[in-house]
Amino acid sequence: MELDKLKRHRTQAISDMLSRPAPHASSPAPHASIITVGDEILIGQIVDSNATYIAGQLNAIGIRVVEMRSVGDDRQAIIGALDEAARRAKIIVVTGGLGPTSDDLTKEALADYTHTDSWRIDESSLAIIRDITTQRGLPMNKQNRNQALVPDHCQTLLNRTGTAPGLWFDYQERIIIALPGVPFEMEALMEEVVRKLQTSFQLPPVLHRTVTTFGMPESVLAAKLADWERTLPPSIRLAYLPNPLTGVRLRLSVYRPDKVAEALVAEAIAGLRAILGTVIYGEGDDTPAAVVGRLLRERNASVAVAESCTGGRIASLLTSVAGSSDYFKGGVVAYDNAVKTDVLQVCADDLLAYGAVSLPVAEQMAEGVRRLLNADYAVATSGVAGPGGGSEQKPVGTVCIAVATPQGATAQRRQFTGDRARTIDRSSATALNMLRLAMIT
Amino acid sequence: MELDKLKRHRTQAISDMLSRPAPHASSPAPHASIITVGDEILIGQIVDSNATYIAGQLNAIGIRVVEMRSVGDDRQAIIGALDEAARRAKIIVVTGGLGPTSDDLTKEALADYTHTDSWRIDESSLAIIRDITTQRGLPMNKQNRNQALVPDHCQTLLNRTGTAPGLWFDYQERIIIALPGVPFEMEALMEEVVRKLQTSFQLPPVLHRTVTTFGMPESVLAAKLADWERTLPPSIRLAYLPNPLTGVRLRLSVYRPDKVAEALVAEAIAGLRAILGTVIYGEGDDTPAAVVGRLLRERNASVAVAESCTGGRIASLLTSVAGSSDYFKGGVVAYDNAVKTDVLQVCADDLLAYGAVSLPVAEQMAEGVRRLLNADYAVATSGVAGPGGGSEQKPVGTVCIAVATPQGATAQRRQFTGDRARTIDRSSATALNMLRLAMIT
Repeated sequence: MELDKLKRHRTQAISDMLSRPAPHASSPAPHASIITVGDEILIGQIVDSNATYIAGQLNAIGIRVVEMRSVGDDRQAIIGALDEAARRAKIIVVTGGLGPTSDDLTKEALADYTHTDSWRIDESSLAIIRDITTQRGLPMNKQNRNQALVPDHCQTLLNRTGTAPGLWFDYQERIIIALPGVPFEMEALMEEVVRKLQTSFQLPPVLHRTVTTFGMPESVLAAKLADWERTLPPSIRLAYLPNPLTGVRLRLSVYRPDKVAEALVAEAIAGLRAILGTVIYGEGDDTPAAVVGRLLRERNASVAVAESCTGGRIASLLTSVAGSSDYFKGGVVAYDNAVKTDVLQVCADDLLAYGAVSLPVAEQMAEGVRRLLNADYAVATSGVAGPGGGSEQKPVGTVCIAVATPQGATAQRRQFTGDRARTIDRSSATALNMLRLAMIT
Repeated sequence: MELDKLKRHRTQAISDMLSRPAPHASSPAPHASIITVGDEILIGQIVDSNATYIAGQLNAIGIRVVEMRSVGDDRQAIIGALDEAARRAKIIVVTGGLGPTSDDLTKEALADYTHTDSWRIDESSLAIIRDITTQRGLPMNKQNRNQALVPDHCQTLLNRTGTAPGLWFDYQERIIIALPGVPFEMEALMEEVVRKLQTSFQLPPVLHRTVTTFGMPESVLAAKLADWERTLPPSIRLAYLPNPLTGVRLRLSVYRPDKVAEALVAEAIAGLRAILGTVIYGEGDDTPAAVVGRLLRERNASVAVAESCTGGRIASLLTSVAGSSDYFKGGVVAYDNAVKTDVLQVCADDLLAYGAVSLPVAEQMAEGVRRLLNADYAVATSGVAGPGGGSEQKPVGTVCIAVATPQGATAQRRQFTGDRARTIDRSSATALNMLRLAMIT
């Protein structure tokens, strides 16, 4: 409801994190600029997720990204971007345009920009290229060999998963890094980049701890945490990171942490836990599906799902976790009412009396699938995902969610807002969270 | 396999599309630059999908995006970005930073940049803001009122879904447009922006036609289409747009189309259809799930799914289509082998003899769920999504996919590469495509 307040709150937290000087900072965090090269981005064909990944990695080690930009496969555009980036940043990371063809111009642009026309073959990279082309059953041609050709004065970053090495230039008090645009190659090379940046700069160490919450909207959370936030020492920065599937993550960061700061963070998290209790479901990269899996594993228990409006999404989330076959028995997607009665044994009279989107039907679906698949726990959903199918009593976004345990079944009726995809996501995540609560309370 | 060739091919096609002068062009397409404002992007918290959306919209009407960039919530950074963008672009679109709080600095930066300190209240926007705050049960305070305060010399774009109006500046032969950063508000305002740009510039009209294909890797497709491509008149540009869930889309574009060009595109598509046959599954934004739905609807037929390794993903894709309850009966996620035998009636001896990941088991799963849910068609999957569970005979990525029709069941064994999520996506989309082929042949 209070969107403005909410937005202010979040933006303020992030802005604080970025702009407040780190306490006891002897030198400010170095600034970085990220440049992605590729026409695909400029025509709106793909989202530039590489820049987001790199920004996250740099921020995590205390480097402040001041600008990101995308330019086309055009030598002058790349040089122009480098030139402008160098005015604001000590560190420039370029991705894309390192391939073997005439459209890949990043290497040439970097040679131009750093005023060299002296090139060398990097033998270690050439060996890897030879291996990869052999594996792919391709001939080793001139184009492949040229991938190992690099400007003489740069260092190479060995790319073990592709044919384009990364490049590292030390030029006019700037570090310029060029990485391939294939996401998994870039991500693998970023590990080395992070290590090298940490040794090249006196980076303020950063301590991040993330607490994951579910079931409380960001605005309510912010109001509930207002007093606690005021007690946070200024060295701890807080960010609210909301996501429909994983809830609101609360990230606490300390730049240049010491023993005292670490203790303060631990204390702050203890404070959070005292206020939020079971609203907190995990730490770090935990998701509701992963945490439910962990709880089931600890209890040596199994789960099954019965889905109407979520149409397989809950099963899909549970099985996106590797190893979920240890505790996930399976599920029934009961879209048609006949599936609810015939397969899940929902009482036909109740279906008629209360309608498919009702607490009794959701409960019977959960109990039915728990029995059918011989599972310890079960969740079920029945709702109106939209855009059609709504009524005055049950508008679009109405979803009944049930949990069945060895002790019986309970159900809740919820009202979600947003489009079909968002309602499906939110009700699936809510079902997993209800299962978590049923297991721990 | 031939990744390099593939990449060259794709990049070339896009590059051609961007850089070749349009035939009969009296003036070149105007250049645009997109600036997104927000610290969330720079810390790697969210992907900048707004820029991608805007780029797609501008390209579709013949405006060439030459640069995108993201800057933080910082007045000087925004002004610097505007300044640099104006050197390269006639049109600058800014999103974000239009909110009501002290962190939202785009409006102030634009006033500075365009040298004004004269402001006015935009009455139409104020009326909308009043409506929205009332609806949300919030008081009309100074911050809300300030949302309607705009630089005197700009036009406003009425935002009917939020409190921040869009702004349109005509300044020093540049058009500068500011839009809110909330995606659905931005998208709604882009409709008006597109209309206004079309009347402000003599834009070359653009004709895009997209043909969607599935089941043929991009490199194979490119080889098969090489001769056809050579016969394309130079006025038609071709782009290959691959996606794991929807296959490879082939987009043909003509700038400044006339009757002749339209006829040439129709002829080119007829040529494509002759070469590719049933590899083509649709046009435009079609997806395999939507096309399967259309075919089922035409036949007044229903479908059910039995999923092991895809864990609910196929059901989830089918039910992501609004109205799918008309033809989707439901499904069984049979993760545990007991579910395969007890619920789907897979023969236990066959399960033992051939293993769960086998053609007979996949076929029996499809037949089982077709019978159980009383559906006309069914698909089933059983495979090793990984990362664990692979063997020498059945390595990670092995998936058996079956289709059951009123005429019986058939199955195929496929080998996918990539991580768990990609294998699940690819096998789900492949299952839907096999179902499509079974219905039309």
